[in-house]
Amino acid sequence: MSEITLIGVDWGSTSVRAFAIARGGAVVNVRRTDDGVFLRSGDFGARLAALLGDWPANVPILMCGMIGSDRGWVQAPYVTAPAGLDDLAKHLVRVPFVRPAFIVPGVSLIADETCEVMRGEETIVMGLDARDALACLPGTHAKWVDVDDRRIVDFRTYMTGELRALVLGHGALATGVAQEHSHDAFAQGLDAASSGVTSGLFQARARRLLGRLAAEHTAAFVGGVLIGEELRHEARGERVTVAAQGEIASAYAAALDGRPHAIEDPERAVAKGLWRIAEAAGLC
Amino acid sequence: MSEITLIGVDWGSTSVRAFAIARGGAVVNVRRTDDGVFLRSGDFGARLAALLGDWPANVPILMCGMIGSDRGWVQAPYVTAPAGLDDLAKHLVRVPFVRPAFIVPGVSLIADETCEVMRGEETIVMGLDARDALACLPGTHAKWVDVDDRRIVDFRTYMTGELRALVLGHGALATGVAQEHSHDAFAQGLDAASSGVTSGLFQARARRLLGRLAAEHTAAFVGGVLIGEELRHEARGERVTVAAQGEIASAYAAALDGRPHAIEDPERAVAKGLWRIAEAAGLC
Repeated sequence: MSEITLIGVDWGSTSVRAFAIARGGAVVNVRRTDDGVFLRSGDFGARLAALLGDWPANVPILMCGMIGSDRGWVQAPYVTAPAGLDDLAKHLVRVPFVRPAFIVPGVSLIADETCEVMRGEETIVMGLDARDALACLPGTHAKWVDVDDRRIVDFRTYMTGELRALVLGHGALATGVAQEHSHDAFAQGLDAASSGVTSGLFQARARRLLGRLAAEHTAAFVGGVLIGEELRHEARGERVTVAAQGEIASAYAAALDGRPHAIEDPERAVAKGLWRIAEAAGLC
Repeated sequence: MSEITLIGVDWGSTSVRAFAIARGGAVVNVRRTDDGVFLRSGDFGARLAALLGDWPANVPILMCGMIGSDRGWVQAPYVTAPAGLDDLAKHLVRVPFVRPAFIVPGVSLIADETCEVMRGEETIVMGLDARDALACLPGTHAKWVDVDDRRIVDFRTYMTGELRALVLGHGALATGVAQEHSHDAFAQGLDAASSGVTSGLFQARARRLLGRLAAEHTAAFVGGVLIGEELRHEARGERVTVAAQGEIASAYAAALDGRPHAIEDPERAVAKGLWRIAEAAGLC
């Protein structure tokens, strides 16, 4: 086994992934648990020690994600965009632990017309193969990021995943029946997005009542409306780099059909980003 | 007291209002309870009898709203738009009750690109003073209706009230603090709607985290985003008739500032609509 020179930890709200990283940035081992920041409060030192287990104790640790939020271990203040590797590396925040362990700051953007925040996604962006990209990071709060020479220049957030879960779990669109994917229903949802989200979502109910949409295709239709809303505001012709895998990657690929795009694995990207930031900070 | 010639009942999901209506259409008495269709199932005959109490037993009863849905007393199939007084009157559905009692059908619209349904709102529209209007009916599922010579020609639904309740009750926008109205926050929400709903809603979180929005003004901001979304798709210059009262009427009036609009009382309109439909059906 290659010599491990960095432990990277992507510590989010609901899950945590730890990477044992060798010289050069290769991930030689991964551990995944559901011990997310929001699962219980505090006691982060013991939780990290348990996560690392028998991994080498003499290498630095770099963490990103909600672990740096006000509900995390130590708050890592946002750095303001534009922000690249050096800006993130300069503002690492050390946590009280028996060995050197740091948190990557989030990134904020404050303009007259808008405010934006990200925490965790900045590290994925740093790890993308694409140095210049319109990066799409699907999720609870999906981010679309303008990346220029591996710097975060501008970004927008869409509450896609959160709204999807809320409307399918409660109220007029909740069906109580197991959902099946349907390319047709997804495509119809994409089209319905043109009348706006609050109108397009109601279409899932009206079409079901009028026999035009099967109950088990509600989630596919809703996914189409919400992803369609992102695409109405983004992806106007530039090449899009989508950081996603599995069904989510397939959904975005279908939605981007005909437009230039690439898919990258977000887990690979976050590990690579942690490595690159650690390198820029002189940690490894 | 004038002689009562019709009992009108607006029987919705969560509340019921009964109107004792005199010759000419004047409402001489109103009863309001929370015995909505969804409160418990079935037993509608006894529930109606309890509601009517000592009101005259020799006059016909006309009901509208969710009482005609698949969870109501008897299902009243949708009539298709365009639909006016005569179309609704021709398709009243009688319920099994000791005296003549009928339900007004809902209205549906099926086009290539869209499906729409309403149930209850058709009766409000029939009762508006405005014979020709772009009618705005705020609510859980807000409706915007093109009304031509008191006929429902076309309509669109926005899940405004439902999304408002969902995002304020759960997830990233739930604050746990009592909400206060703020004209400024509402206006900022209206502006934020221009970037779309799923993006505009996230602004409530980002601005709070960055100190640009007070936690207690979250609901006002969210209201602005959602009503702003309606206005982005509607109200392009025509006179708008808003059927709302209280804070909701004020919110729409503020959002429509500078555009021609009128406010009508939806309770008065639904009673008037029941009367006009009953008249068209020869019930009174």
